[in-house]
Amino acid sequence: MFKIGVNGFGTIGKRVASAVQKQKDMKLLGISDISPSWESRYAAMNVPVYMSLKEYGKDEVEQFEKVKKTFIDAGIEPAGAVTDLIDEANLIVDATPEGIGRKNKEEIYSRKKSLHAIFQGGEKASIAKVTFNANINYKDAVGEQFIRVPSCNTTGMLRYLNSIQEVSDVKDVIINLIRRGADPAEPNSGPINDYVPTEIPSHHADDVIVADKRLEGKLITYGVKVPVTLMHMHNVVVTGDFPSRDKILDAFDDNLRIIVLGGENGAPTAAEIIDANDRRDLYQIIILEKTVHLHGNILLFSAYVHQEADVIPENIDAIRASLGFEDSYDSIIKTNESLGLKETKKRLEELFPVS
Amino acid sequence: MFKIGVNGFGTIGKRVASAVQKQKDMKLLGISDISPSWESRYAAMNVPVYMSLKEYGKDEVEQFEKVKKTFIDAGIEPAGAVTDLIDEANLIVDATPEGIGRKNKEEIYSRKKSLHAIFQGGEKASIAKVTFNANINYKDAVGEQFIRVPSCNTTGMLRYLNSIQEVSDVKDVIINLIRRGADPAEPNSGPINDYVPTEIPSHHADDVIVADKRLEGKLITYGVKVPVTLMHMHNVVVTGDFPSRDKILDAFDDNLRIIVLGGENGAPTAAEIIDANDRRDLYQIIILEKTVHLHGNILLFSAYVHQEADVIPENIDAIRASLGFEDSYDSIIKTNESLGLKETKKRLEELFPVS
Amino acid sequence: MFKIGVNGFGTIGKRVASAVQKQKDMKLLGISDISPSWESRYAAMNVPVYMSLKEYGKDEVEQFEKVKKTFIDAGIEPAGAVTDLIDEANLIVDATPEGIGRKNKEEIYSRKKSLHAIFQGGEKASIAKVTFNANINYKDAVGEQFIRVPSCNTTGMLRYLNSIQEVSDVKDVIINLIRRGADPAEPNSGPINDYVPTEIPSHHADDVIVADKRLEGKLITYGVKVPVTLMHMHNVVVTGDFPSRDKILDAFDDNLRIIVLGGENGAPTAAEIIDANDRRDLYQIIILEKTVHLHGNILLFSAYVHQEADVIPENIDAIRASLGFEDSYDSIIKTNESLGLKETKKRLEELFPVS
Amino acid sequence: MFKIGVNGFGTIGKRVASAVQKQKDMKLLGISDISPSWESRYAAMNVPVYMSLKEYGKDEVEQFEKVKKTFIDAGIEPAGAVTDLIDEANLIVDATPEGIGRKNKEEIYSRKKSLHAIFQGGEKASIAKVTFNANINYKDAVGEQFIRVPSCNTTGMLRYLNSIQEVSDVKDVIINLIRRGADPAEPNSGPINDYVPTEIPSHHADDVIVADKRLEGKLITYGVKVPVTLMHMHNVVVTGDFPSRDKILDAFDDNLRIIVLGGENGAPTAAEIIDANDRRDLYQIIILEKTVHLHGNILLFSAYVHQEADVIPENIDAIRASLGFEDSYDSIIKTNESLGLKETKKRLEELFPVS
Repeated sequence: MFKIGVNGFGTIGKRVASAVQKQKDMKLLGISDISPSWESRYAAMNVPVYMSLKEYGKDEVEQFEKVKKTFIDAGIEPAGAVTDLIDEANLIVDATPEGIGRKNKEEIYSRKKSLHAIFQGGEKASIAKVTFNANINYKDAVGEQFIRVPSCNTTGMLRYLNSIQEVSDVKDVIINLIRRGADPAEPNSGPINDYVPTEIPSHHADDVIVADKRLEGKLITYGVKVPVTLMHMHNVVVTGDFPSRDKILDAFDDNLRIIVLGGENGAPTAAEIIDANDRRDLYQIIILEKTVHLHGNILLFSAYVHQEADVIPENIDAIRASLGFEDSYDSIIKTNESLGLKETKKRLEELFPVS
Repeated sequence: MFKIGVNGFGTIGKRVASAVQKQKDMKLLGISDISPSWESRYAAMNVPVYMSLKEYGKDEVEQFEKVKKTFIDAGIEPAGAVTDLIDEANLIVDATPEGIGRKNKEEIYSRKKSLHAIFQGGEKASIAKVTFNANINYKDAVGEQFIRVPSCNTTGMLRYLNSIQEVSDVKDVIINLIRRGADPAEPNSGPINDYVPTEIPSHHADDVIVADKRLEGKLITYGVKVPVTLMHMHNVVVTGDFPSRDKILDAFDDNLRIIVLGGENGAPTAAEIIDANDRRDLYQIIILEKTVHLHGNILLFSAYVHQEADVIPENIDAIRASLGFEDSYDSIIKTNESLGLKETKKRLEELFPVS
Repeated sequence: MFKIGVNGFGTIGKRVASAVQKQKDMKLLGISDISPSWESRYAAMNVPVYMSLKEYGKDEVEQFEKVKKTFIDAGIEPAGAVTDLIDEANLIVDATPEGIGRKNKEEIYSRKKSLHAIFQGGEKASIAKVTFNANINYKDAVGEQFIRVPSCNTTGMLRYLNSIQEVSDVKDVIINLIRRGADPAEPNSGPINDYVPTEIPSHHADDVIVADKRLEGKLITYGVKVPVTLMHMHNVVVTGDFPSRDKILDAFDDNLRIIVLGGENGAPTAAEIIDANDRRDLYQIIILEKTVHLHGNILLFSAYVHQEADVIPENIDAIRASLGFEDSYDSIIKTNESLGLKETKKRLEELFPVS
Repeated sequence: MFKIGVNGFGTIGKRVASAVQKQKDMKLLGISDISPSWESRYAAMNVPVYMSLKEYGKDEVEQFEKVKKTFIDAGIEPAGAVTDLIDEANLIVDATPEGIGRKNKEEIYSRKKSLHAIFQGGEKASIAKVTFNANINYKDAVGEQFIRVPSCNTTGMLRYLNSIQEVSDVKDVIINLIRRGADPAEPNSGPINDYVPTEIPSHHADDVIVADKRLEGKLITYGVKVPVTLMHMHNVVVTGDFPSRDKILDAFDDNLRIIVLGGENGAPTAAEIIDANDRRDLYQIIILEKTVHLHGNILLFSAYVHQEADVIPENIDAIRASLGFEDSYDSIIKTNESLGLKETKKRLEELFPVS
């Protein structure tokens, strides 16, 4: 039984914690956070809550006393300091904000030689030898002390580009990311009525290539932020040699972490899919069948990437790989079953059948 | 066992159908819709789907044949015509769009003398003798062939104004409704970046007064539509004689269909509450404790009204009343238990404790 | 002096009317609308207002009397019927909603043999022999009785694709349109929090090809509607043989109806450009320099298309062409000068200089 | 001729600078900013640009050299340091972000004994003896070295509550502020799809009372932020003794910085008014006539407050008062004429006539 702690309890941390609880081979020891909020109370309903600090290294005892008071005032009895959680755990999933993961690695995870850790895509790729995707490089990650699970957008690209590469000879890939401006419960982030574009190319491509070397020199990404909270949308152009459209659709369909959906009135909207899934997390990438189009040696399609959930199964597989579980196929099946991916796929395919 | 059909499968119809299925004393015979969509396929997963028509009265057989073809093409085998559903049912919950309910009453429900029907707030009050609220006029509705459940906003007002009136002497009530522009999966409705105000007074007050005569001449409502899909927000000003703020909070709290929530950083946002409830329907009205303010003979507070869900328990109670179930308290308890209102209240109160 | 009437006074009609008034060789006789609104009062401040009907062909006199009453009640004294405007005019610019233009052509414009008319992109291409763009087919339009100015998106594509084709050998063009959900003062249109995608390919490509035959079989377009009111955004992928990036930028820059903008922090947002232009109409297409990227035989860039204004200069040029003015270059210069395109370009280039 | 500098060039600073340039009795010496942006280039087109620092007090020469380099790299030749601007000016309008004004007062304005300064509502009231409104306390401000112009919302309330108090006996005032989430070109601020409420009461009332003592103990304000960039909306409930509705409308109308607008289909939307004003700044508060409602001793109405512009005329009047110009009426007329308030009022009243 792998003993797991989760450090950071935001959009990703809370979902990883919940997913760990659903694994038969894992035990969630607790989660750690820096200050109490409704989200830490949400955590405390199910699992011990530990306390993190803004700065480690001096006066830690006094600092923890202060933090403890704020937790108790907020109605949460902390189970201890994050360092106590580290003492107990085999592995910490770090889901703290961008850049804090590296700080944590140096300042607290390093205190326990045997500790393994999973980092998220907000950290630079250099934080770990492997930037992980279960379909692509699980084997390279087996036994690795530190693994990085890249961002939702990168994870989405790795999945569908892997499917395409399995049946095609890919020359170039151009991806325009229409990025959701904020997660649903992030009221401070915009934009409200604007497009916020990045340069071409954006940094996303580098992150994909770190995990999938086949795409080196071939992938260009760029993005624009818009006033939507539901999902990212990817508009993908691939050049190369392709089999028939049906074979490409089959290749997507072969990956249980991808769902191909049709729709009566063109492609379904993001909100329709979220509603059809009863507003639950969507671990899979959605490919819109009505947008899959072959034009000579150019392949086009659009995909939805649920920014809150698609990295969750990868985090679970990364935990197993890091702690030495060798069979990638078995891990993927365990993860998928525990999180209900097959049921979601079946259900959404029935609601939005491919014509 | 009451045999129930649901006519119309949009935002309200689908929720009523699902709630009926959770009642031990009711059986959902089926739902009826006019054309196939992902939402009727969603229905067809669990329940027989019947076919409605745009125009009744001539060539019905031919029309149904045409509609049947569109359903079958969409992968749904219809169980029959809406008239077949009527034949079998004791009661139809009509959740068709504004004005269609009256047409249905005249053109098809009237074909079966014994048929009872529940209508929604989109229909004029004159469609039924009782405009229903479980706390206020359940008894008047017992045995009534036709009952109208008013809109989400009206239902919300009836609930919290009833609580206030039970402990106060109310003189005047002014309610500003900040209205959500569209439901989450209604991509055609706006506004995108605008305020869309109505005149003062708006029609909402009349609808409240139909159900609660105590408010005659006292209630003024008005509203403004904004680019939000999550909830309505009510800003309420009441003049009169009030007990202490605590007693008013207690009065709200006594109604299981109202939840009073606090929050660390002021009042929680609508999206935080939706997220804290795991994005499930919210059958209760939320009163924001940080906004409950007494200033001499003026009482102020703000409330959230979940436009998709707050009328669902009232529909279930209205079914029981119409079909002769006399004990209002027992009906409310049955409905609340089947829909989990107590658990939701407990959970949200723990996450957003009153200070 | 060309005598011009404008039929329809919405987003496009009001802008064409105002632009006609700025031309030394044109006289705006009046505008016509179907019912009074703040926008017709806006018109009536500067120009005679005529009355249109919903149905022509019978009881016209009686109908006009009724419409006249509604205008007078709204504080507008109409100058006559749209048929009176037609009697006086050499040319009508029809800016009525989609499909009404064809009806008008058949029912009222046909009453005067010598009448010329300009239609908008909402009408099918078959309404006129020429689907117009000043850079591409002005000559074909000279003397044509009926000319169609295609939609804002089509006009934008025609401009920048013409610039590219002048210096490159274009193989394929893929354009993803991120479409604004509504114009700023259209409060009923959404979406509020959603992506609304179309199939691939969308119909836009056909419309471009009608005006620019070089692109036949090469152009694929598709789109997604988002909650923004300011502009459309085009994400363009072109394959082919290209000169240097600088030469492509020069080619864009050579067209006075295109502006290439840089920006310190990546590409400027749509709202920043609108603000920098003091919220005035933007007749030019904006190419974001930070997005112009050459990758072997693939050219990428993003463009903003101001949906309210980019077709206005084309309408003015189309009027001249239709009424026999032969020198396209001279017409373009007259139009540009009267509408201040040079000043706008200079100003925005100074504010967002290319690095 | 008053010599004026503007420190800070955001939403307010740029508008104050432009308004100062339109005054016959003022000369704009320059504006100062901390780093170059498109907005400082916008300024540099018309007026000398000076350089501000993040920290004053040490190594200022070296710091200014560094800042100078960033300005020159951005294509702006700075005219000097903010301290040079101070040397030349009689008065600085400080439009820097919240809290920076106080720092500037202590660290740099204090270096010149004779310097006058106007601060904005982001600073605490204690920064100046007078929190200014031209209608209410111009006289108290004459000759004051430091004056504070309160925020857009406070300024709006001061105006319309003054009109009401002139003809009524006001008992209590309750104002619900629906606040725009961000200015149009602030793409980082949200919310996207949420309501963000404050506690009741909010701090706004205190700020009003500082300037209008008559409202002490009578005014309660609270607010909710929504995804709109155009304006704030105030929903106002006043209790007291009132003359007829017409007299209240007249009282509003008597203030040239208030416009009462009607509308065919209920109250006009915010975007319709902005469009009707050709998207120019709206210096006046808009009262929606269809919302002005008397119910016994309760008065209701809704108002729009243009967050970017309503404080601009007050800033201009505050400059005159501070520098010793004694005639408030004359100052208001000068300001209004230079900024075209009469034309705007006439135009909008024609477009949205009161019924």
